Amino acid sequence: MENEESLQKSFAELFRAGAGVHTGIGDDAAVLDYDRRDGRLVLAAVDQVIEDVHFVRETDPGSVARKLLMRNISDIAAMGGVPAQALVTLAMTPFDTDWLHGFQSKLADAALEYGVSVVGGDMSSMASPGKVATLNITGLVEPEKLCLRSGAKAGDALYVTGSFGRAYPGTHHLTFTPRLKEARFLAGEYTRCMMDVTDGLGKDLARIGVASGLSIDITHGDAIPRRDNATWEQVLNDGEDYELILAVPQEKCEALEQNWPFRIPLTRAGVFQAGTPGKLMMNGVPLEPKGYDHSHG
Amino acid sequence: MENEESLQKSFAELFRAGAGVHTGIGDDAAVLDYDRRDGRLVLAAVDQVIEDVHFVRETDPGSVARKLLMRNISDIAAMGGVPAQALVTLAMTPFDTDWLHGFQSKLADAALEYGVSVVGGDMSSMASPGKVATLNITGLVEPEKLCLRSGAKAGDALYVTGSFGRAYPGTHHLTFTPRLKEARFLAGEYTRCMMDVTDGLGKDLARIGVASGLSIDITHGDAIPRRDNATWEQVLNDGEDYELILAVPQEKCEALEQNWPFRIPLTRAGVFQAGTPGKLMMNGVPLEPKGYDHSHG
Repeated sequence: MENEESLQKSFAELFRAGAGVHTGIGDDAAVLDYDRRDGRLVLAAVDQVIEDVHFVRETDPGSVARKLLMRNISDIAAMGGVPAQALVTLAMTPFDTDWLHGFQSKLADAALEYGVSVVGGDMSSMASPGKVATLNITGLVEPEKLCLRSGAKAGDALYVTGSFGRAYPGTHHLTFTPRLKEARFLAGEYTRCMMDVTDGLGKDLARIGVASGLSIDITHGDAIPRRDNATWEQVLNDGEDYELILAVPQEKCEALEQNWPFRIPLTRAGVFQAGTPGKLMMNGVPLEPKGYDHSHG
Repeated sequence: MENEESLQKSFAELFRAGAGVHTGIGDDAAVLDYDRRDGRLVLAAVDQVIEDVHFVRETDPGSVARKLLMRNISDIAAMGGVPAQALVTLAMTPFDTDWLHGFQSKLADAALEYGVSVVGGDMSSMASPGKVATLNITGLVEPEKLCLRSGAKAGDALYVTGSFGRAYPGTHHLTFTPRLKEARFLAGEYTRCMMDVTDGLGKDLARIGVASGLSIDITHGDAIPRRDNATWEQVLNDGEDYELILAVPQEKCEALEQNWPFRIPLTRAGVFQAGTPGKLMMNGVPLEPKGYDHSHG
């Protein structure tokens, strides 16, 4: 089995972007130029949640619906945008009307809360027992707020929001709040390079490094808040944190730390620097990649 | 198990359209006003194909990818638009790299052929064996070409493209060509009400009737071309024809029939008329609904 990285790569090579596509496969969302009168760009992303992969059979349908939507909102947030519309699919066997109603009803509530219009969907049974739900989301972003993984510059500070590790054994992976208002505060004003952490801090740091063509030195690993007494290994390798990682130019760091208005912590954790793209270090010592083929991301 | 009609209804009631949503759930695609400088509206739809539901295990991966894309292009065509971008998901167990490559490669070819940019995707394994692939498509349509199911007027003639019945036992459901150029010729010029037939001619005629608040009298049932010597029952109840049904104002019928430039047949089959919305008749005699809970649509 190939790993996800090489599959993504083959996807990106196979599918060349056409007219109106600002940024295709390889960021948290695609960026489309829909030639809007207000100049905003359109973001588009898709994600799926699968029974016994992203949730267990006993998970209540409302939590599944909420997770599906929040994962996608987290992608839009990381691009600097605001969510707009969604389309949803569900494949389910055996067909369970109560489960479906619980799923739909929570999806409607959560969509309303975040100002998302659910504009279409499709439902089907499948041959084997299980559930596969997908959600496609669109969003809007001002060009000057657009944040790409490729936007870090050598010398930029690495910041992270919130806490890391042990999201999946706990309930965080179902109950997390996407960092939408934090991302909107940061985008454009303090950063042009942001990403949400879904597959583990180490793996996703490596990705943002590769996209920006830079190494990352984690100089303040001990300062990164840990969830549920997670070990450093778990901080680095567990997935589903749904926190932001971002690059901030040095001259903006002081203002950012002074002006940060949110309760969740914002931690200066390291620095982007010239070097092998995607290489991670701890205080100058190379870090071995681990957990890069996560089982439930 | 509720039928699809009532599920769609509950979806539409649950999810109210927000700002920028011209037409939400209940047509072949949602219509979004993205405030484009050229005035065109954005179409968005999603569809899924599932192993042992929409294709058998032995179906080659290229045919699966092609079907997935063509189903979605057929939706955009029926709205009067042209396809633009796609996002794709695949859930697969056991994970089969060769299958994946066949799927991706044909998807890329078919997307290129139709001018569609694949801008994102997600892949995952699932717990039970099987395959679930989804594709979200966007398209663009000039407001004056937009065709909705609700657009028929009493007295409009009913036309159908192509042949009907026995699409699934044969190969048509895998090899069909979406009626994109035919739909673009028809949209705006000859019709403002179009739909693609996926769930059976009878069922989909009833839907277009319900949406337009009209009955439909099939006055030329014998003139409708049949695939593979299909019976009238099969013409009416089999799914996956991917043909167009449309409403044409009487004063445009003669010009349409004279100007039709395509090889595939265009057949005048009946008339939309005041009466119980969605009621179907054959030469004035009510038709019993059958096959309305199709198993592979």
